[in-house]
Amino acid sequence: MDEFDVEEHADPELEDPVLVEGLPGVGHVGKLVAEHLLEEFEDAELVRRVYSEHFPPQVAVDDDGTTTMASAEFHAVRTDGADILLLSGDHQATDAPGHYRLTDCFLDVAEAFGVERAFALGGVPTGELIEEYAVVGAATDDEQVEELEAAGVEFREDEPAGGIVGVSGLLLGLGERRDIPTACLMGETSGYLVDPKSARAVLEVLQEVVDFEVGYASLEDRAEEMEEVIKKIQEMEQGPQTPSDEDLRYIG
Amino acid sequence: MDEFDVEEHADPELEDPVLVEGLPGVGHVGKLVAEHLLEEFEDAELVRRVYSEHFPPQVAVDDDGTTTMASAEFHAVRTDGADILLLSGDHQATDAPGHYRLTDCFLDVAEAFGVERAFALGGVPTGELIEEYAVVGAATDDEQVEELEAAGVEFREDEPAGGIVGVSGLLLGLGERRDIPTACLMGETSGYLVDPKSARAVLEVLQEVVDFEVGYASLEDRAEEMEEVIKKIQEMEQGPQTPSDEDLRYIG
Amino acid sequence: MDEFDVEEHADPELEDPVLVEGLPGVGHVGKLVAEHLLEEFEDAELVRRVYSEHFPPQVAVDDDGTTTMASAEFHAVRTDGADILLLSGDHQATDAPGHYRLTDCFLDVAEAFGVERAFALGGVPTGELIEEYAVVGAATDDEQVEELEAAGVEFREDEPAGGIVGVSGLLLGLGERRDIPTACLMGETSGYLVDPKSARAVLEVLQEVVDFEVGYASLEDRAEEMEEVIKKIQEMEQGPQTPSDEDLRYIG
Amino acid sequence: MDEFDVEEHADPELEDPVLVEGLPGVGHVGKLVAEHLLEEFEDAELVRRVYSEHFPPQVAVDDDGTTTMASAEFHAVRTDGADILLLSGDHQATDAPGHYRLTDCFLDVAEAFGVERAFALGGVPTGELIEEYAVVGAATDDEQVEELEAAGVEFREDEPAGGIVGVSGLLLGLGERRDIPTACLMGETSGYLVDPKSARAVLEVLQEVVDFEVGYASLEDRAEEMEEVIKKIQEMEQGPQTPSDEDLRYIG
Repeated sequence: MDEFDVEEHADPELEDPVLVEGLPGVGHVGKLVAEHLLEEFEDAELVRRVYSEHFPPQVAVDDDGTTTMASAEFHAVRTDGADILLLSGDHQATDAPGHYRLTDCFLDVAEAFGVERAFALGGVPTGELIEEYAVVGAATDDEQVEELEAAGVEFREDEPAGGIVGVSGLLLGLGERRDIPTACLMGETSGYLVDPKSARAVLEVLQEVVDFEVGYASLEDRAEEMEEVIKKIQEMEQGPQTPSDEDLRYIG
Repeated sequence: MDEFDVEEHADPELEDPVLVEGLPGVGHVGKLVAEHLLEEFEDAELVRRVYSEHFPPQVAVDDDGTTTMASAEFHAVRTDGADILLLSGDHQATDAPGHYRLTDCFLDVAEAFGVERAFALGGVPTGELIEEYAVVGAATDDEQVEELEAAGVEFREDEPAGGIVGVSGLLLGLGERRDIPTACLMGETSGYLVDPKSARAVLEVLQEVVDFEVGYASLEDRAEEMEEVIKKIQEMEQGPQTPSDEDLRYIG
Repeated sequence: MDEFDVEEHADPELEDPVLVEGLPGVGHVGKLVAEHLLEEFEDAELVRRVYSEHFPPQVAVDDDGTTTMASAEFHAVRTDGADILLLSGDHQATDAPGHYRLTDCFLDVAEAFGVERAFALGGVPTGELIEEYAVVGAATDDEQVEELEAAGVEFREDEPAGGIVGVSGLLLGLGERRDIPTACLMGETSGYLVDPKSARAVLEVLQEVVDFEVGYASLEDRAEEMEEVIKKIQEMEQGPQTPSDEDLRYIG
Repeated sequence: MDEFDVEEHADPELEDPVLVEGLPGVGHVGKLVAEHLLEEFEDAELVRRVYSEHFPPQVAVDDDGTTTMASAEFHAVRTDGADILLLSGDHQATDAPGHYRLTDCFLDVAEAFGVERAFALGGVPTGELIEEYAVVGAATDDEQVEELEAAGVEFREDEPAGGIVGVSGLLLGLGERRDIPTACLMGETSGYLVDPKSARAVLEVLQEVVDFEVGYASLEDRAEEMEEVIKKIQEMEQGPQTPSDEDLRYIG
């Protein structure tokens, strides 16, 4: 295997596709959006699978007992509105140069499909359970900041503290260097739990800005499951003491 | 030294050899099987030794005071049934890209010997001492899943959790990309102890599927030694309190 | 992106420029000096920005919501006296080879601008709050040691213990190998706090040795802010017990 | 700078020189021997200095305030008996591939000087203070094992447990692959302290096997200093309880 191995599964023509990235991260927000899109748009088509020595050295075992090596996937998703090139997967790189090289490889694939705009999705941890799910933004240029603000995205000084790390962050950094306007949409999330409600908040913004429509059924199911989990945890903790948010571990 | 240094010791013709990998891992299950095969098939022949800068930087000191640099070995093992190309050693790679490159190097050697099927052996930790040793499987394709199920191998959803890591995992991942049907046989094991009984369970499946026969004498000896070790630990712990499995450290 | 990506923003002629490095480190002393120079010399001109896969994989989010990928910057600073090529940024490399390669890249840029002398700025931790801010030195050759001693810099046996690490250290090591006389000026600092007073002490030496004049207004403002912070911490700790320096965490 | 930068300082003709390596390690035994040889043989000549990006990114500050970048040194040492090519320094590599490549580089230098035999010096930790300092050995071949046993070196099964790591280990591993007979001499040492007595024991064996004579004055001075240190520690600990070896930290 070479440093990167881009496996071609299909090669459809896409019309001005928008790259949407939903890899694992805080609250699995980006990943939940990606999974939701694949579930709702049933004719989403796997177009590329990327293997790399920068991924962790492992295979996943699928439900039927067969294995899949660590990889990232690109699907072509045709909506009523815009075409989406969806980047999803279960892994980030294992070291710093790997993150840069992997993101460069992803952008090569995106450019081959004609992508001229990109969205990196993620979560921003608040440290406490959330009632109102705001979406925090960052972008490579002022025009996008304005456009996203109009769509309800919040831009806050010094947030996220520490910047945006991993593939999401570098999509903006390396995207800008390729003149691909890129924005990051980060759903507020406690940071302790897989958070379908935060994913929904991000998806609502994405729908408006990218221009497509999608149902929320499966995200709502997941949100209900998580409500159950949270309720159980709270009950378990409600013995002698009142439960504190800080006691919740990352569960999902 | 280059990144890899494949030392040639012999170059026998093998008939449709099956690659069997038994490197260190959970419960040393794969390594025990490999050692057992080398002990039982006395005319096993060392054919390749692989050195690499991806191995830990160290030499082992043998009983006679001479040293051997970290390496992996391939032996040609001729049984009554199939020919086996046996991969064994004391090390895995020290970083993620190293795992990928090392496994690729191993598959190059295997293909040079005409290998068209491979088995990665290992253990799956249960966290408690085991009475009935099941063998859990994973494979690159459905046909193997069926064949292995028929041989008593269990395929379980979400097991092993976290997938299969290291060389064993990548033999499946990179093997599949080379069109080499590969399966992983994982003996259930507590995860705290070197586990000859788990190795035997794996060996029994391997015998049936690969088609060869071998005695169990040396594994039984080892199993008895381990029984003694476990008994002593349990006695030591049986002072004021009943011993708990969790107190057992990794011993062997 | 290549291993290094040196973005050209301007290409002014500089007269015998002196390289001054102020990257993050102990007490942020070097970084404070660099920021201060950029604030005081308003016509400082960004000439190069260096991106590298050896930097952490992240983007910073600026106050206007736009992002900047991890990088280091070179500014041309024209003073009344000498011209300065100022190296600043928020990051060091993520691994050992990265430090060497990054520093080599920085020296390539410096030599392209005709740099024939360099200063690496930093802090040396004392472990306690400081009254008198000494500046400790190290240099690639005896002549500089003499010159700096005459300017009040202290050279102490075995200090800093453990040598000088990171880009600052390698500027001396690799600078020497390129025959660029290089010195390191390290302000004494507690090591617990961002330390504008230590930065001022270093700046005073730098002014004298490099030959330029600059006001201290913004550093004094920052020093006052830090005084407030220290006072608050001391009040918080002055409950039942007298506060100890060791309790102060790194704050700034 | 390239991956390795071998600086040439002198190029004397040596007669059948023996490579002796004394880099930092357990009890600083090898390093102490190397330093002792340089002190006793005053006309030892620096012949090569090796810089590498695999060393830690740092410079040491010498007593006169000037700096030296992390490096290893080769000295030509002419004794009454054999010529010695002495490898010394303050650093090992920072990662696994670095250890392999650095050792290969060292062996290239050694072969350029005509080295046909090598000794790696080090310590083997016993975990307790030592009365009788044995020297434990390992070698690339049986003949050396015999020769060293005759010189009082002990070869013990399973010692050192875990093998020999770092440059010392790889000198044997990679030396063997170049057909350079290599032995490792490891002085027993507590592992908690810099141990001049252990260094002396190793030196006595080395003298006999390599054939040279050297005084012990400076090592004895160091040993006396360490005796003082140990005495002080023991007094400090002899308050309410008897001191235990385990309480001694690594001091020297």
